[in-house]
Amino acid sequence: MTYNNNSLEQLIYSFSKLPGLGSRSARRIILHLLKDPQMRILPLAQNLQQVASDIQKCSKCGNLDMESVCYICNDSERDHEIIAVVETVAELWAIERSKMYKGKYHVLGGALSALKGSSPEELGLTLLRARIIEEQIEEVIIATNATMDGQTTAFYIMNYLEDLEIKTTRLASGIPIGGELDYLDEGTLCAALQSRKKFEEA
Amino acid sequence: MTYNNNSLEQLIYSFSKLPGLGSRSARRIILHLLKDPQMRILPLAQNLQQVASDIQKCSKCGNLDMESVCYICNDSERDHEIIAVVETVAELWAIERSKMYKGKYHVLGGALSALKGSSPEELGLTLLRARIIEEQIEEVIIATNATMDGQTTAFYIMNYLEDLEIKTTRLASGIPIGGELDYLDEGTLCAALQSRKKFEEA
Repeated sequence: MTYNNNSLEQLIYSFSKLPGLGSRSARRIILHLLKDPQMRILPLAQNLQQVASDIQKCSKCGNLDMESVCYICNDSERDHEIIAVVETVAELWAIERSKMYKGKYHVLGGALSALKGSSPEELGLTLLRARIIEEQIEEVIIATNATMDGQTTAFYIMNYLEDLEIKTTRLASGIPIGGELDYLDEGTLCAALQSRKKFEEA
Repeated sequence: MTYNNNSLEQLIYSFSKLPGLGSRSARRIILHLLKDPQMRILPLAQNLQQVASDIQKCSKCGNLDMESVCYICNDSERDHEIIAVVETVAELWAIERSKMYKGKYHVLGGALSALKGSSPEELGLTLLRARIIEEQIEEVIIATNATMDGQTTAFYIMNYLEDLEIKTTRLASGIPIGGELDYLDEGTLCAALQSRKKFEEA
């Protein structure tokens, strides 16, 4: 940065450090905001402040919301007997966007990882276990990511819940809708072949 | 958006409308910020608020700064006899980043445009003219963009200042450093050929 050292420069620097942004895109955003500070910057600042002060981790599932029990846990119309276990809120949001799933969630807050050192204790699994028993859950969908850590975590959870004798499922692996075989990795193709279905099932 | 309608959703929406961002990148940024609301969101909100309340257009040159006369106009070490005329603060910042220019600026706040309807009056040219006479300016570099509107504006300003009999210059057109001829448009190549220099001048 070559311009003056002040709160404007600090703001551009802070934006440039956000994921996916650099100094050029940060400058572009700040110049856009500066075209109307009262209408563009102040509401954004207030919005940020409100979220920072009100955001809470749901005491039941670990989702982020403005209430201590999140809108999904509070929704009586949703299926109470099924829990999807996800790594983070990002995956919960992704599943919600599919509009396909009407059950509840358990947000682990990460995956088991030898490298980053996340341990089973940190994932709130005792909470999940207690909830499965208390709420008479019938199915747990382990919806961790299809990464090495995600799969390790999935197997760990499967073992951890084995004695409860409930239905435990995983998301299907296969070809993404719209995907071209030529561009897919071998692992995905193997999984798609192994889990192939008869036409009537599809 | 499929999640709950609240200030969190509003925040993601606001970020998704910033230039260069979409809903995916906005969600990614907000999730990053939510990992530590106290340390990541609150300082950003305060920074935004401070900039919104303190930002001012420099009364001399039109630059944006926290003071009514900007740090460039206030800098006694800079060359007082030369003014670079730029369209917006974005171009001023770009020239400052080059670290090559040590004179002052005049920020037009836009370019003449038949389409968008910017008129000569809006560009603060009477202010520029008064400043040239008052501050005994020796050279005006017209550093508008090399676009249609920018060039129209440059010619207009050149004519407007003609009777003052000061040195009026334009930025050189040519091949960008690192540019490959094969990828350049014909217009740039023509300009580079027409303005070719002897080796000793280069």
